[in-house]
Amino acid sequence: MDSNSVSPMPELAPIAEFDKSPPSPPNEEVPMDDLPPPPATISQPEGKTKLQRTRSYDSEDTERGACEWCEYALVITLATVLLLGVSGLTVFWILYYREGFGWADDIPEKQFNLHPALMVAGFVTFSGFSVLLYRICRCLRRIYVKLLHAIFHALAMPCIVIGFLAVLDFHNKKGINNFYSLHSWIGLTAMGLFGLQYAVGFFSFLLLLICSKGTAGFRASLVPVHAAFGVLTFVLGVAACLTGLTEKALFTIGNETYASMSEESIVMNAIGVSIVGVAIVVLYTVRGTGGHRTRTVAAQHPS
Amino acid sequence: MDSNSVSPMPELAPIAEFDKSPPSPPNEEVPMDDLPPPPATISQPEGKTKLQRTRSYDSEDTERGACEWCEYALVITLATVLLLGVSGLTVFWILYYREGFGWADDIPEKQFNLHPALMVAGFVTFSGFSVLLYRICRCLRRIYVKLLHAIFHALAMPCIVIGFLAVLDFHNKKGINNFYSLHSWIGLTAMGLFGLQYAVGFFSFLLLLICSKGTAGFRASLVPVHAAFGVLTFVLGVAACLTGLTEKALFTIGNETYASMSEESIVMNAIGVSIVGVAIVVLYTVRGTGGHRTRTVAAQHPS
Ligand code: HEM
Ligand code: HEM
Repeated sequence: MDSNSVSPMPELAPIAEFDKSPPSPPNEEVPMDDLPPPPATISQPEGKTKLQRTRSYDSEDTERGACEWCEYALVITLATVLLLGVSGLTVFWILYYREGFGWADDIPEKQFNLHPALMVAGFVTFSGFSVLLYRICRCLRRIYVKLLHAIFHALAMPCIVIGFLAVLDFHNKKGINNFYSLHSWIGLTAMGLFGLQYAVGFFSFLLLLICSKGTAGFRASLVPVHAAFGVLTFVLGVAACLTGLTEKALFTIGNETYASMSEESIVMNAIGVSIVGVAIVVLYTVRGTGGHRTRTVAAQHPS
Repeated sequence: MDSNSVSPMPELAPIAEFDKSPPSPPNEEVPMDDLPPPPATISQPEGKTKLQRTRSYDSEDTERGACEWCEYALVITLATVLLLGVSGLTVFWILYYREGFGWADDIPEKQFNLHPALMVAGFVTFSGFSVLLYRICRCLRRIYVKLLHAIFHALAMPCIVIGFLAVLDFHNKKGINNFYSLHSWIGLTAMGLFGLQYAVGFFSFLLLLICSKGTAGFRASLVPVHAAFGVLTFVLGVAACLTGLTEKALFTIGNETYASMSEESIVMNAIGVSIVGVAIVVLYTVRGTGGHRTRTVAAQHPS
């Protein structure tokens, strides 16, 4: 609880775009002012000592307590376990209770099974890690973090596309209507926002680095919008997963068996609970994102 | 989008506990320092001129643009329409398609119908207004806003309790198992958190005012925790509504008819979409809540 006031990293660490503010207001802007200008290209020699120093985990800053490192380690560990666990549990559920995966098979259900597994991997695991990166890699140069962020989302992209095509093709094979459910409406919105975010982010935060100085103001002003829409996309993805799980449980376990708390019901509910847990941890680590603080910080270090 | 940087109210308004920070960092702490100490009891004469001035909507502050008032008016109007609309739509759905409400009737389904209507009223409409108050009433004295916040949640409480008893009793009458679904697990968590939040909030922010000075530090340190758990409770309530709607659609409209996009399917999906819309607007207005900013502001004006 009290950890709300704690920033898990040394103050001298270069603060990333999605960064939350350090705890004490009087120091807030100070560490940024004495930092060298942010590196615009990958190889830039100036400011290396400072950056080197911040890259070391054992900070000389005596004001920082062990407690902050504890929180940092705890959150990262918990997040990693949950993010991997949620995909693991989904794959386990499909292999153990739903006959595994397939495509162009005589069993179209095996093709459907790709849908939940890939959607959870794309919208929860990969996207979750991609967002957490901004917390985990605070000692890394900004451009590397941005590249990693882009790469993780690039990994999420094919999962989402194939996962969507799997259910679309399954519906068409079985002659079921498309896009009738609340789940599919929420899912479509989430996927649309995901594509938009990727396109705008890639163009603005990576391509526009070609003209780093000229576009700094524009890029800085886009950061809080990108962050806020990122949180929205993630939350909509989570809502799609929860409604999807509920639908699937009633479709294939069936009302009566689901209500009897069969083994599979409990496994599916556990997937849902883990997804809620992931959402809480991820949103906890990015709290404050999309507010003014982000904008202020970004305006000083836009690249 | 750009409105992210905009604070819709005059800077001199006494800033509530859940308040977001004014836009420009150099002015951030200034307006608070020249305010009189916050009123501890309701009738306190000092500082009246200052408070009177802030109560007026036409601020003398020439720096404020019309645009900020536009955003304020837009968000409040949109939120009010959505919050009332979502409950209205739910009641319409039940009256028009589900034969209305009842209890101890020969049709237990009428008793079930109380569940979605009261849950949406309690967790979305009343709770949503209660949270928005901190944005709407920025010109009101803090103690009044707190009382209104407590009153709105006190209105939500019986809705939630009766809504829960309605479905519990319905299940028992029909011999259906309790608490088997992902929906009920999420719902139970949301209700538990709601009760906890209400008890802790009532005790800390109202009762402890008896000893206003002695408890200021404690109350201030509780504000970000209360805010963060409040957001969590609200989001879990929304997740419960979405999964509940999905279940109910499949139970009573049935798989095939739901997939054929019947009138009722579209009405139910529209309820779900409106709930997502409410969540976006409410979370947009409380963005930044639970971060450091809140804590800093609260530490200065804890009452
Ligand atoms: C972020 C994640 C997800 C997104 C964006 C998503 C998106 C979609 C979309 C757009 C459809 C409609 C396809 C069509 O009508 O042709 C669909 C269908 C479906 N999805 Fe998902 N989905 C997600 C996760 C899940 C999960 C985790 C499950 C759990 C098993 C699931 C179960 C289903 C089921 C049963 C259908 C067919 C019934 C229907 O159309 O509602 N989905 N999904
Ligand atoms: C925040 C809002 C809500 C909460 C906290 C909530 C909570 C619960 C709980 C705890 C149960 C289990 C009762 C039992 O097993 O005896 C339940 C059942 C149910 N609820 Fe809700 N609910 C909410 C909103 C809704 C909405 C909007 C609907 C839409 C129609 C809905 C539909 C259902 C259905 C169909 C059941 C019976 C099946 C089951 O147990 O999952 N709920 N709800």
